[in-house]
Amino acid sequence: MSDLSQDVGCYLIQRLYDYGVRHVFGVPGDFVLGFYQKLIESNKLKVINTCDEQGAAFAADAYARVNGLGVLCVTYCVGGLKVVNATAQAFAEKSPLVVISGAPGINERIKNPLLHHKVRDFDTQQKIFEHITIDSVLVNNPRTAAKDIDRVLTSACRYKRPVYIELPRDKISIPIYQEQYVGSSKTAKVEEGDDIDSMQEALAEATTMINSSKQPVIIAGVEIHRFGIQDKLLQLTDKTNIPVASTILSKSVISEDYPTYIGVYEGAMGHQSVREYVESSDCLILLGALMTDINFAISPTPIEQSKSIYVTAEKLSIKHHNFENVLLQDFLASLIQAPLTRKDFVVDRKQDNTRNNSNNKRFLVARNQKITVKRLFERLNFSISDNTIVIADVGDSLFGALDLTIHGQTDFLSPAFYCSMGFAVPAAIGAQLANPMLRPIVIVGDGAFQMTGMEISTISRFGLNPIIIVLNNNGYGTERPMLDGPFNDILAWNYYRIPEILGHGRGFVIQTEDQLEASLSAAEKIYSKELCILDIRLDIHDGSPALQRLTESLGKKVH
Amino acid sequence: MSDLSQDVGCYLIQRLYDYGVRHVFGVPGDFVLGFYQKLIESNKLKVINTCDEQGAAFAADAYARVNGLGVLCVTYCVGGLKVVNATAQAFAEKSPLVVISGAPGINERIKNPLLHHKVRDFDTQQKIFEHITIDSVLVNNPRTAAKDIDRVLTSACRYKRPVYIELPRDKISIPIYQEQYVGSSKTAKVEEGDDIDSMQEALAEATTMINSSKQPVIIAGVEIHRFGIQDKLLQLTDKTNIPVASTILSKSVISEDYPTYIGVYEGAMGHQSVREYVESSDCLILLGALMTDINFAISPTPIEQSKSIYVTAEKLSIKHHNFENVLLQDFLASLIQAPLTRKDFVVDRKQDNTRNNSNNKRFLVARNQKITVKRLFERLNFSISDNTIVIADVGDSLFGALDLTIHGQTDFLSPAFYCSMGFAVPAAIGAQLANPMLRPIVIVGDGAFQMTGMEISTISRFGLNPIIIVLNNNGYGTERPMLDGPFNDILAWNYYRIPEILGHGRGFVIQTEDQLEASLSAAEKIYSKELCILDIRLDIHDGSPALQRLTESLGKKVH
Repeated sequence: MSDLSQDVGCYLIQRLYDYGVRHVFGVPGDFVLGFYQKLIESNKLKVINTCDEQGAAFAADAYARVNGLGVLCVTYCVGGLKVVNATAQAFAEKSPLVVISGAPGINERIKNPLLHHKVRDFDTQQKIFEHITIDSVLVNNPRTAAKDIDRVLTSACRYKRPVYIELPRDKISIPIYQEQYVGSSKTAKVEEGDDIDSMQEALAEATTMINSSKQPVIIAGVEIHRFGIQDKLLQLTDKTNIPVASTILSKSVISEDYPTYIGVYEGAMGHQSVREYVESSDCLILLGALMTDINFAISPTPIEQSKSIYVTAEKLSIKHHNFENVLLQDFLASLIQAPLTRKDFVVDRKQDNTRNNSNNKRFLVARNQKITVKRLFERLNFSISDNTIVIADVGDSLFGALDLTIHGQTDFLSPAFYCSMGFAVPAAIGAQLANPMLRPIVIVGDGAFQMTGMEISTISRFGLNPIIIVLNNNGYGTERPMLDGPFNDILAWNYYRIPEILGHGRGFVIQTEDQLEASLSAAEKIYSKELCILDIRLDIHDGSPALQRLTESLGKKVH
Repeated sequence: MSDLSQDVGCYLIQRLYDYGVRHVFGVPGDFVLGFYQKLIESNKLKVINTCDEQGAAFAADAYARVNGLGVLCVTYCVGGLKVVNATAQAFAEKSPLVVISGAPGINERIKNPLLHHKVRDFDTQQKIFEHITIDSVLVNNPRTAAKDIDRVLTSACRYKRPVYIELPRDKISIPIYQEQYVGSSKTAKVEEGDDIDSMQEALAEATTMINSSKQPVIIAGVEIHRFGIQDKLLQLTDKTNIPVASTILSKSVISEDYPTYIGVYEGAMGHQSVREYVESSDCLILLGALMTDINFAISPTPIEQSKSIYVTAEKLSIKHHNFENVLLQDFLASLIQAPLTRKDFVVDRKQDNTRNNSNNKRFLVARNQKITVKRLFERLNFSISDNTIVIADVGDSLFGALDLTIHGQTDFLSPAFYCSMGFAVPAAIGAQLANPMLRPIVIVGDGAFQMTGMEISTISRFGLNPIIIVLNNNGYGTERPMLDGPFNDILAWNYYRIPEILGHGRGFVIQTEDQLEASLSAAEKIYSKELCILDIRLDIHDGSPALQRLTESLGKKVH
């Protein structure tokens, strides 16, 4: 229970602490300096300041994905409006990100003066954030401040979407008014009743459908992870022996070593064996999956609605009819209790190269052989352990990474639906601070690196030790097969020399397979405590097989 | 006159060309690739692609400030939502920036699918931009497309504010429907009538007020530059001999060598002589000035309304009453024709150190003397010529730069009201492409450099040659005097070694006055065609006198 005899700033800090938050990401500015001072004085939440606000936002988003809630703290407009894109990504991909923005004091807003950092009206920033958050509040009333803050944080957790809290600088130190509000318990439990009758009917129908099916398959989506119900998913597959596929956005929602796991379903872009299994299934059980074009390999979607049970945190559909007020968490819990019969088939996984590569073979280095995307990922698979988390940026970093076998749960992060470039390097900061037991392996294209890669400065400053793999092919490799032009080229940087700019870390330039082997080996053994950056010199037209399939599909739509 | 027998994309390109645009800044992405291809094929507008969209937006804003219109071209959401802050700055500081965003095709939006890059609804991005632009359009109707595009471009020029054009990818190549619209002339002239009676009354009152005053002064604001009416300002001061001050946002609105120019008026932060002259004036003629806290040295404003004639592109006030529909451009033109008597006083400028320094003395190097902010700016004053443009980032880069004497018109750029850090380096790209005769001298703090400074990659790629002065004091020097803490520190980079990463440019590390002298001399003589970066190692607590005055004023409000 929080100490309520405190001011607004301290109350907010305490509530975030109650939710398990230990770090706040941001860049200070005059309208938020007072709150920054409270953060330091509280000694509860560590301030991680990044180079640019965009980096802080991606870091906080990654922290949210790993920790369950992430917090970004920026100044008014010049800070807040720099993170609109990253917040939009958190909204699209259901990441519970709390955006705290300093703001001019309420008493400074009288007569609407032109204060610095102001765009149009004093509420312009809040209005913009209303489009990309699930809840927001301007904290300006001591009588409702505690309740408002609690409501917004509850919304973030209930919907797994970003929220916005605006703190006018003259309201940070006002006392919380206690009489009308006794505070909420540790993390306010949301009481939202399912509709019992709808649930019973849906459950009966789903049970019949599953029991009578010959080849059912579970597609486990990202909400399984966001709501932390992986254990229920495991119970369901254990009980029924129904195989589980993930989506590109939910890769690693369960361990990819799990016996009933068959791989990432990714339509035409994914592995043929998974595709065939899913698309010939007579009962698709879609649990918390977002039906995006990327998750389902662009289009047209091969998922047949007439064979589907589709449940998310927001809706439940069976075949072509919908049930109101029956939500993922409760439906899944009820399904485990339902009279489902155990399937006794065995899934043939021989076609799945991924698993074969990582579990059964050694990587044989071809000396002086020029490194390729395909071989790079084959080798990286051997660097993945229980103590790594793979973070893939957009583009071939992601598509190539689909072939990696992730051992743990939630040990793979990528903005695989919204697809904002530049996520991966700053995300490593958030992910590793959220779980210091994991060493991030960051896979990032050179184009994405040039956007936010200099956040390795923040990585250095806070003593983190990711291994950063830069796919260096002088441009936007994903776009080239769609439509090429000089706009897809970028300047060639000597990425491996960036540690010399920072005075921290180790850089490696890699042209051949043996150089890759030596560098990864050094990064893992000799420089295991340091940031390492591997500058992988790839052929400009090289790409993973998945990329080739994707761009063929996308390229048709460019014109 | 444009060729109207063309498609939407070509029509837009032709119209931008008609407005004098020759470059487009951006980062490509799949939803905008088709338009990028048209840009290349048109051979009219050169594509300048930057590292990150934020850099493109700052560059396009600077291009707009120098050229009269600037264009940014990005992809849907993951591009567009990255430039919300920069667009907001253009809005706040009246820069005519055209934001073009690719978008999903209209035929892809049927049934509202979850396409990649989508946040919430397909119109989420446009709704966000409505908050920070003066006009916007979703180009989806061939019958109105030409008219809509013309209207939006006219709005940008009429209001000197950003506008938003969304191009669904299936509408880029549809033919312009000609029957209903014959196109506009080269750059549609806005016919907006002033109210003649109001004008006459206002003019008579202003004339009497000016003629009867003993110490009138003109404060020339940024709109004088934005609307390109500097010549009228000169006519007014030539005719009347009334002295002219600028604001921090409009610095260099006229040449700072001009005989009647007295300096930047900046309240308590500015030079004492200018302050005394302005604040003891009995007739303040404020022409196109934004009454911002930064322009008028935070607060309280010492401008007495009862002694003011205040006219902007949006309003005219004399003393405490307002006139409707009398606008800056026309009022100023009429004022020149009015029976104003010539003042015969001489302004004493002996107190103005700026002018003395640059015009009458040589800079005497103190050997082995540690470099200070004050001495740095004194020396920089001697590097300013008719062929330079000074671009100052936010913070002491700006405050110190107030003391520089700018020779030409519009040869000083800074985001001096909205104050978004990270503007200066990318702005150098836009400014130099808009006017290749000018070599930018960029002054940027290390904190701001870490946000967007790697856009020197773009500078290198397109063969530009700014001199970049990094004020390296390991953190946010402007904030330290307000409220200090570890959040104001940043990692020390070896900025001077960044050319080694890029394979272009020259770097210098500077600790002393003689190193500064030698480096500037080399940058100007030996490496005059190359990007040069000067890494100025300053004491952590050093700062310009103006900064000290400002932070004392701001610091009182932090808590």
